[in-house]
Amino acid sequence: MKIDIISCQPGLIDGFFSQSIVKNAIQNGFVEINTHDLRTFGTGNYRQIDDYQYGGGAGMVLMIEPLARLIRSLQQDTIYDQIIYLTPDGKTLNQKTVNTLSLTQNLLLICGHYKGIDERVRELFVTQEISIGDYVLSGGEIAAAVLTDAIVRLIPGVINDETSALTDSFQDDLLAPPVYTRPADFEGTKVPEVLLSGNEKLINEWRLDKSIERTTLRRPDLLAK
Amino acid sequence: MKIDIISCQPGLIDGFFSQSIVKNAIQNGFVEINTHDLRTFGTGNYRQIDDYQYGGGAGMVLMIEPLARLIRSLQQDTIYDQIIYLTPDGKTLNQKTVNTLSLTQNLLLICGHYKGIDERVRELFVTQEISIGDYVLSGGEIAAAVLTDAIVRLIPGVINDETSALTDSFQDDLLAPPVYTRPADFEGTKVPEVLLSGNEKLINEWRLDKSIERTTLRRPDLLAK
Repeated sequence: MKIDIISCQPGLIDGFFSQSIVKNAIQNGFVEINTHDLRTFGTGNYRQIDDYQYGGGAGMVLMIEPLARLIRSLQQDTIYDQIIYLTPDGKTLNQKTVNTLSLTQNLLLICGHYKGIDERVRELFVTQEISIGDYVLSGGEIAAAVLTDAIVRLIPGVINDETSALTDSFQDDLLAPPVYTRPADFEGTKVPEVLLSGNEKLINEWRLDKSIERTTLRRPDLLAK
Repeated sequence: MKIDIISCQPGLIDGFFSQSIVKNAIQNGFVEINTHDLRTFGTGNYRQIDDYQYGGGAGMVLMIEPLARLIRSLQQDTIYDQIIYLTPDGKTLNQKTVNTLSLTQNLLLICGHYKGIDERVRELFVTQEISIGDYVLSGGEIAAAVLTDAIVRLIPGVINDETSALTDSFQDDLLAPPVYTRPADFEGTKVPEVLLSGNEKLINEWRLDKSIERTTLRRPDLLAK
């Protein structure tokens, strides 16, 4: 799998991927991640990449020409399954979308910045628009890091125990049950007895009950799906 | 404002904050951010911080004792408005929560890792549980970076033009309208004429129409609020 990321602050993303499981996944050959500095394709001697928005108002907008040049240059070498723009008005990311994207070969992520990108980039180049949640960030780089991490950890072999990912929250529309580890008694607060019983059947029943109970309390919308 | 972050991979967060607006906000004295390495408070000669989960199953769990020691040590110096655990089964983050948190003085964020933290930490110490979205990440560090970025950019003075944040998506339950910048004609695809008209009233009407249209199409749930 290959993930190309277009950013005007590539250092921000590289810093993030220099730690974490993404780094291991790269080193072990599970994924290739390339960040591309938009400024390299900027316009004129100053490598301009943004400008004031038409119609007035606060906030700069990333120009179409540098983005178009960079995207077309990348497309000469790669056919992308999706060209994704990370934006708060995109489709809200969920685990199902992450699962689907983890099965693709080539992804191109575009990080917005400031007030966003020229709308025509979205019309002419972007195939999928994703929001990581209903809040605004200072740039798309953090969103790209979130999306990349969520995808990469699903590639078989990236996390040690594959069953670990399959029992996560959301994979079955249930929140995960509570987890406990040693000591069994912390200042009088004890681990539920059933977990110490060694009875696998009872433990599995307890976990499913707790998953359903927690989902009912906290996220009834997941159960209604 | 002060944000303390507990992590077993503090390098991951520091790398992220060494770029971005968060770095500027720190340098300009708008916010103090301290990452605290959980391992420093680990148990025994090996500074153990995680262990297998009771009842069996894949994935390690962060132990309560190191977390309790670190939290109590921090509480000797600081009274926290909220002790926040970033977890996929927490309350889904939205802009309203970000706004509220941006008005607090002291926050403590706990990053989970592996299969999560011992449930008793949540019962005994945590005051707020936040999920950044319905997907699973390799650790809470990315979620803490998201939350911190979203909060810090709202502190007055952190982004240059305060009106820029106020016209973001979600601040008024509407998605932002499309934005355009030069050139007015890109390979035949043109900027909407109204934005070139110089007529502020018409431009504002067009933007509101587009905001409502986009929200109706993409996020009718926001309008129903």
